[in-house]
Amino acid sequence: MGDKLEELFSTGKIGGLLWSSPNNPTWTCLTETELEMIGKLLTKHDVIGIEDSAYLGMDFRYDYSKPGQSPFQPTIAKFTENYFIIISSSKIFSYAGQRISVTISSESLMTRKYPYLKKYFNSKTILSAFIHGGIYPTTAGVPQTTQHALAAFFESACTGEFDFLDSLKVYKVRAKKAKEIFLKNGFTLAYPDDRGKPLGDGFYFTIQRGDLTSGELLYYLLQFGLAGIPLDITGSKKKGVRICISLVHQNQYPELENRVKALNKFLTNLNK
Amino acid sequence: MGDKLEELFSTGKIGGLLWSSPNNPTWTCLTETELEMIGKLLTKHDVIGIEDSAYLGMDFRYDYSKPGQSPFQPTIAKFTENYFIIISSSKIFSYAGQRISVTISSESLMTRKYPYLKKYFNSKTILSAFIHGGIYPTTAGVPQTTQHALAAFFESACTGEFDFLDSLKVYKVRAKKAKEIFLKNGFTLAYPDDRGKPLGDGFYFTIQRGDLTSGELLYYLLQFGLAGIPLDITGSKKKGVRICISLVHQNQYPELENRVKALNKFLTNLNK
Repeated sequence: MGDKLEELFSTGKIGGLLWSSPNNPTWTCLTETELEMIGKLLTKHDVIGIEDSAYLGMDFRYDYSKPGQSPFQPTIAKFTENYFIIISSSKIFSYAGQRISVTISSESLMTRKYPYLKKYFNSKTILSAFIHGGIYPTTAGVPQTTQHALAAFFESACTGEFDFLDSLKVYKVRAKKAKEIFLKNGFTLAYPDDRGKPLGDGFYFTIQRGDLTSGELLYYLLQFGLAGIPLDITGSKKKGVRICISLVHQNQYPELENRVKALNKFLTNLNK
Repeated sequence: MGDKLEELFSTGKIGGLLWSSPNNPTWTCLTETELEMIGKLLTKHDVIGIEDSAYLGMDFRYDYSKPGQSPFQPTIAKFTENYFIIISSSKIFSYAGQRISVTISSESLMTRKYPYLKKYFNSKTILSAFIHGGIYPTTAGVPQTTQHALAAFFESACTGEFDFLDSLKVYKVRAKKAKEIFLKNGFTLAYPDDRGKPLGDGFYFTIQRGDLTSGELLYYLLQFGLAGIPLDITGSKKKGVRICISLVHQNQYPELENRVKALNKFLTNLNK
């Protein structure tokens, strides 16, 4: 990955690099070593890293639930000043309906001046261009009540009063169960491991079936009342579908099993 | 106005016409006759009228407070199908902090197909381009709780249970009082009438002082603890400042009077 990034950044044509970790749709996670390498390259080539931390702490293979105690959520902020971190409230606080997230950056990046910004945003600093030229004109802002609620969420999570990861661990249980149902019915995982390590159980996982394309597999899933996101629209080059378990309740797993069994039978009869 | 619009629309270069009524910053209002003329031209030249109804019903010279009874708020929707009406909750429901508004359009406009839209929005219909290509990618959407609250506001206003205009009439009283204070201290109104008719009292009004430019006048106002918006940044060609009374409370009017008096004395000494 380092050589490829070095090659791309060296062209001088790359302004920013965006990723999420855990990744969507693979649920693989960047390690500290990888982030350190990325961070050094971001600094060296003056590229901005945009870390989408929608699933902050949700790599349940490690216990990130104790504030101030290791292990800590790996983050690019440890290895460069050139970062934006986006933390959405949707997943970590199950607060999707309120449409709020925060962006964190370093003071040194925020106060840096780029003469070219002036042309489009009437300011040379990223701080001003981002807030007054980006966020403000493209959104109506965030409601006051939601801001107060999110601030309270963060505060109670930081003091340890509210263990938000504990309330999310149900997803780990559900993902494990749902995965088993698919695997024992003739499906395989499109992304079965995290580069050598076992893949964590989280919000979603990816399934494949023989040589069915992403679209074909989704088409069959839908006929059996099952939904997912075809991998080909996510930027992935693998065939398959991303299965998200966040809205499937515990008591629906027997029904999920019925449907996956019936789908398996149907596809087996079709020699798929 | 009709001739000017006809001339502009005839060029084929105008896609939309945006206005607010009451107008910002003049607080003048479009009449039914004017809207009828605009509506006909919008239809004739297939231009879209965007009516910003942030101050819906707040032309207090008429009583628009009884649902289903005339007089009715004049609107472009009576005279063309080519309209968007934007109703912000900020002013009419004093709900600014929640950042929500609604857009109303005609079914015929929403379902019309414009081949060129396809290129940018992956759809030919305005409905799809507006929602999926415009609103969705540029905003995070509106929180669910705020949507429910606004729906309740509209419902109770429409049934007559909640007379929202009654709770806004305090602004009329304040504007009248604040205007008097400025007028008896050597200021004049930049927009003194509504094309022949007396100007209504509402959210704001505009003041001038001799031949001071907008910026100079604001500079002197600020030195006496008074704020406003210079007319030159609003698109107005007049010199002056817009004074908004929405956050000035009843008990602050004696202090307002003190400051305006002191400012008057100061400017008089400078021969301004």
